[in-house]
Amino acid sequence: MSLEKYFLEHKKNALQKLEKAIDEKEVDTDILSILNLINASDEYYTSSSCTGRIVLLEIPNIGDKKGAKFLGKWHRIIESDEVLSATKNAKTGLLWLLAQSPIIHMAARTNAAADKILKIAISSGFKNSGLKSIGKRIIVEICSTERIDAPIGKNGELLCSLEHLKLLINISNEIIRKSNIKLGRFERMLLDSGYHHE
Amino acid sequence: MSLEKYFLEHKKNALQKLEKAIDEKEVDTDILSILNLINASDEYYTSSSCTGRIVLLEIPNIGDKKGAKFLGKWHRIIESDEVLSATKNAKTGLLWLLAQSPIIHMAARTNAAADKILKIAISSGFKNSGLKSIGKRIIVEICSTERIDAPIGKNGELLCSLEHLKLLINISNEIIRKSNIKLGRFERMLLDSGYHHE
Repeated sequence: MSLEKYFLEHKKNALQKLEKAIDEKEVDTDILSILNLINASDEYYTSSSCTGRIVLLEIPNIGDKKGAKFLGKWHRIIESDEVLSATKNAKTGLLWLLAQSPIIHMAARTNAAADKILKIAISSGFKNSGLKSIGKRIIVEICSTERIDAPIGKNGELLCSLEHLKLLINISNEIIRKSNIKLGRFERMLLDSGYHHE
Repeated sequence: MSLEKYFLEHKKNALQKLEKAIDEKEVDTDILSILNLINASDEYYTSSSCTGRIVLLEIPNIGDKKGAKFLGKWHRIIESDEVLSATKNAKTGLLWLLAQSPIIHMAARTNAAADKILKIAISSGFKNSGLKSIGKRIIVEICSTERIDAPIGKNGELLCSLEHLKLLINISNEIIRKSNIKLGRFERMLLDSGYHHE
C-alpha cells in the first residue's frame, strides 16, 4: 500500500471512530470545533483528544497504569467538596490528584505539514508540543506544560489538610481556565492560517 | 550553508559547550557516558541533559518560569529533613515540590537517525520521548512519564504535614531510583545497537 493510501485509509477509520465518540457524547464540544478544523484539511486527521481535566486517581504503584482506578474525573472547574466526596471511595494504594492541560493527537501526511501545525500550536501556548513518531506514521502531540501530579493520600487515607487541598484545587482550576484560553487561541490561529472548511 | 555543514558546525559548538560544562562539574557522571556514546556517532550531538532530580521551587504564579527560584535541587535520593530545611527560605508565592525523571536533548542529522534513537529510548522505558522540532534542525527529546508536580505551600508557609511530606519524598526517591535504572538500560541498548566509540 502506498503511503498516501495508508494515510487516507487511517484517516477514514479515525473519522468513523470520532463520529462514534461524538454520538456517545464522549467528545467535549469545546474541543470539537478544533478537531473539525483539523480534520477538514487533507493534511491531517485527529486520533484522540482531551480538553484538559482534573483527575482523582488511585494507583497501586508508580507507573502501574493498568492498576489505576479513576475515583473522579472533571473536565471543568470544580469545588473542593467534589474531590473530598470522591476520596471516600479510596481503598488501597496511592491517591493522586492530577490537573492536566489539553492534549490533541493527530497524524500528519507529510513532515512539512507536521512542522506547520507544530509551529501554530507552540505559538498558541502549547509549548510542550512535539512529534511522537516519524516514519510510516507522523504523529503530532499538542500539549502544554502546566500540570499538577500530586500524591495526596495512601491506603484510603487522605494525607492533605483541607487548606492544602483547597490550594491544590485552586491551582487545578487555574490550569483549566488557562487551558480554555489556549484552546481558543489555537482555534483562532488555525483559522487565520487558512484551516477553513469551505 | 548546506544542511550537512550546518549540522557539523552546531555539533562542534555543542561539544565545546559540553566540555566547558564538564570542566565546571555541571554534568553528572552517571549521564556522561551516555552523552559520550551519542556524541561519538556521526548522526547526533547532545545539547542538554539532566539525570533526573528533586526540586523545591518557589514560583510567583503558574507558568512564571522567569520569577521561579530554586530553594533546593538534588540529583540523588534525599531525606525529608533536607527539604524541610530548604523550605525555611520560602518567602512569597507558591512552593512546589517537583520530582523529574531524566531528560536528554539531542540533534539528529536525519529523520531516519531520529527515528532510530527514538525507538531505542522508548524501548528503554523513556516512553514520553519525541521530537521537539523537524525541519532545519531535528531535535529529539528523551524523557519519561514518572513525575511529581505538587504545590506544598504558599507565601513562606508549608501546608504539608510531615507525614504527607515524607510520602512525597518517598515517591520522589522512587522516581530517582527508576530513573537510574532506565538510564542504565538505555546505555546498554545504545551499546547493543552499535553506538560504540572504537
